[in-house]
Amino acid sequence: MSDLLDDLSALRAIGARGTGVVRPAFSPDDVRARLWLAERFEAAGLEPRIDPAGNVWGLRGPLLMGSHVDTQPEGGWLDGTYGVMAALAVARGNPEVSVVAFQDEEGRFGATTGSEIWSGALSLEAADRLVALDGTRFADARQALPATGDFPDPNSFRAYVEPHIEQGPVLDAAGESVGVVTAIVGLRQFTVTLRGQQNHAGTTPMRLRRDAFAGLVRASAAIDAALAPLVTPDSVWTVGHVALHPNAASAVPGEVRFTVQWRDADAARLDNMEAAIRGALDEAAGDLALRVSDTASLPPTAMNPALRRALAEAAEAELPGAWREMPSGALHDATNVARLMPAAMLFVPSKGGISHDFAEDTDEKHLLAGLRVLERAAKTLAA
Amino acid sequence: MSDLLDDLSALRAIGARGTGVVRPAFSPDDVRARLWLAERFEAAGLEPRIDPAGNVWGLRGPLLMGSHVDTQPEGGWLDGTYGVMAALAVARGNPEVSVVAFQDEEGRFGATTGSEIWSGALSLEAADRLVALDGTRFADARQALPATGDFPDPNSFRAYVEPHIEQGPVLDAAGESVGVVTAIVGLRQFTVTLRGQQNHAGTTPMRLRRDAFAGLVRASAAIDAALAPLVTPDSVWTVGHVALHPNAASAVPGEVRFTVQWRDADAARLDNMEAAIRGALDEAAGDLALRVSDTASLPPTAMNPALRRALAEAAEAELPGAWREMPSGALHDATNVARLMPAAMLFVPSKGGISHDFAEDTDEKHLLAGLRVLERAAKTLAA
Repeated sequence: MSDLLDDLSALRAIGARGTGVVRPAFSPDDVRARLWLAERFEAAGLEPRIDPAGNVWGLRGPLLMGSHVDTQPEGGWLDGTYGVMAALAVARGNPEVSVVAFQDEEGRFGATTGSEIWSGALSLEAADRLVALDGTRFADARQALPATGDFPDPNSFRAYVEPHIEQGPVLDAAGESVGVVTAIVGLRQFTVTLRGQQNHAGTTPMRLRRDAFAGLVRASAAIDAALAPLVTPDSVWTVGHVALHPNAASAVPGEVRFTVQWRDADAARLDNMEAAIRGALDEAAGDLALRVSDTASLPPTAMNPALRRALAEAAEAELPGAWREMPSGALHDATNVARLMPAAMLFVPSKGGISHDFAEDTDEKHLLAGLRVLERAAKTLAA
Repeated sequence: MSDLLDDLSALRAIGARGTGVVRPAFSPDDVRARLWLAERFEAAGLEPRIDPAGNVWGLRGPLLMGSHVDTQPEGGWLDGTYGVMAALAVARGNPEVSVVAFQDEEGRFGATTGSEIWSGALSLEAADRLVALDGTRFADARQALPATGDFPDPNSFRAYVEPHIEQGPVLDAAGESVGVVTAIVGLRQFTVTLRGQQNHAGTTPMRLRRDAFAGLVRASAAIDAALAPLVTPDSVWTVGHVALHPNAASAVPGEVRFTVQWRDADAARLDNMEAAIRGALDEAAGDLALRVSDTASLPPTAMNPALRRALAEAAEAELPGAWREMPSGALHDATNVARLMPAAMLFVPSKGGISHDFAEDTDEKHLLAGLRVLERAAKTLAA
């Protein structure tokens, strides 16, 4: 059991920033982490492999378990990493288990890029044309981690189980140790550009401005107003990235580029939200030039009933009354893998619901309780 | 009259880059331009002098006219230069006129450095410690243009008139030839930080978010609403710089830092705008932590009423109905000279309001109309 905590501690040190971790896909620390991981897989008796997308595999049996080890620009120590290290801990005692650490789950280039490529939803050629916000192309970034083999054949696996921290407040607030996931919500994302006229902030009267920042403010307000009548309390939408140009105090902004991302468990509602957001952007653009690019789209995904049952039975046996079934508000690699084979997920709590933040944390007792449930379920599934 | 266009054309050739000019203070081309200028002054019957700050003088009468001939790193052919060459054209026909070309108005070292030194607001010793972005010290840079005399005594002049391109769109949009400046506006600037809670954009319900971007949108809307009843059509305010943190599509923004800059010709209105902006920020912050820092403050400078009247009467005589009174939204050397003596400014249009750009331009008819107004006003003022 303490192998899990040792592994988590060792991986936390690569890219550490205080209590957090900075290890975006294909950054030098991400590459170091993946090379370390391949060594750990080999030491556990698994066949290590790095595929052309940067996914790291520990191959042996047909029950695939894992998650990702890349992080947000300011990430926590458990997001993704818990799933990979718990899978490795299970694999040490169960020869039916293989382990995977997918690449770019956090979306430096796309969103869940590595598992999307493996699932066939995104070709490697199309992925190579993806460009990060800092201008880096996926094709160039992946040269930092040369492949040691090709993509494993999906037919060599019969199921996928992804352990993960909840990244929300439900289990922590209830004092429960694990959650068996029923479905993963869908996600869509636009990258929007509004172009006006860059000008001198002293000599350009308000009435003659074509101010891209003012357009951003109008767009945000219009999106909120357009979505209000369509959504449920579980729907979410976010403007998370904003880049103003030239971004100087004395210049009227000539251009702004920003992301709008929305998530819901219902595919029809995702469509309705998309139409409302497009309408709001058209309305808000006014005399600014508007460009809208689809930069992510993932459908809602139901988890496999048989796998859910195995996890639920193991949870009730290990933690009677201290677990629940619940949806995932966060996107995961399991969304992509579910295209290939039965897939399921197991959550452990996040303190205060905090994730994508240096303060992300989970008590050791929950990390270890999750592992016991996974080990028991893997035994059932391997039988 | 065509002397003005000939002079402008000759000076444009020194440091030319396509339609633009590159002649930052004390660059080799700026030094060539200033030596050429001293010769042109002498040829026109003025006493040429280069002072220790690199200001170039053509001395004769007590009515001082001029501007600057240094440019932005990528400058236009008329910014500053029009004022100096128009002043020389007036001086050719009026022995009461002296001419000046101030140094480093564009702020390679400070901001309006040459006129600031002459006005006494900045000592030459303090200026010598200024360092350009390329590491060059003012003390070293000015060795490239040795002084031929000391600073002229400000008491030898009784007024200053600075012709300049507008660098804004007002005259061009109205189809007018000249603007008589009422005041150089004052400027104030806040740097504002709003801090909420960074979190996962999928798992954090809208009702539980403390989203810094949402705070920025509320703040911008609240500032616009709070200023509306206070301002005139000449008041301006700008959010020009925005830095979101962590600035990732899948993270609820935890913090935003942004500038709010406002300019007005009336000091009391600047105060009222400041109070309204502070109130709007307090109101918009909600459950976000608000921090406001003063990051710039320059008082308005009223132009001298008698000089304004002389320019206005000359404008109405030469261009009946085709001129206006207007504030200057940009800073100029006249701000410094106004500390020493009555000062005023005359604007000619900028095509499309474009300046600090190779594309900066003005129709010849407006350049010549401005000169006629200056010649007529100078006659009145010399009487």
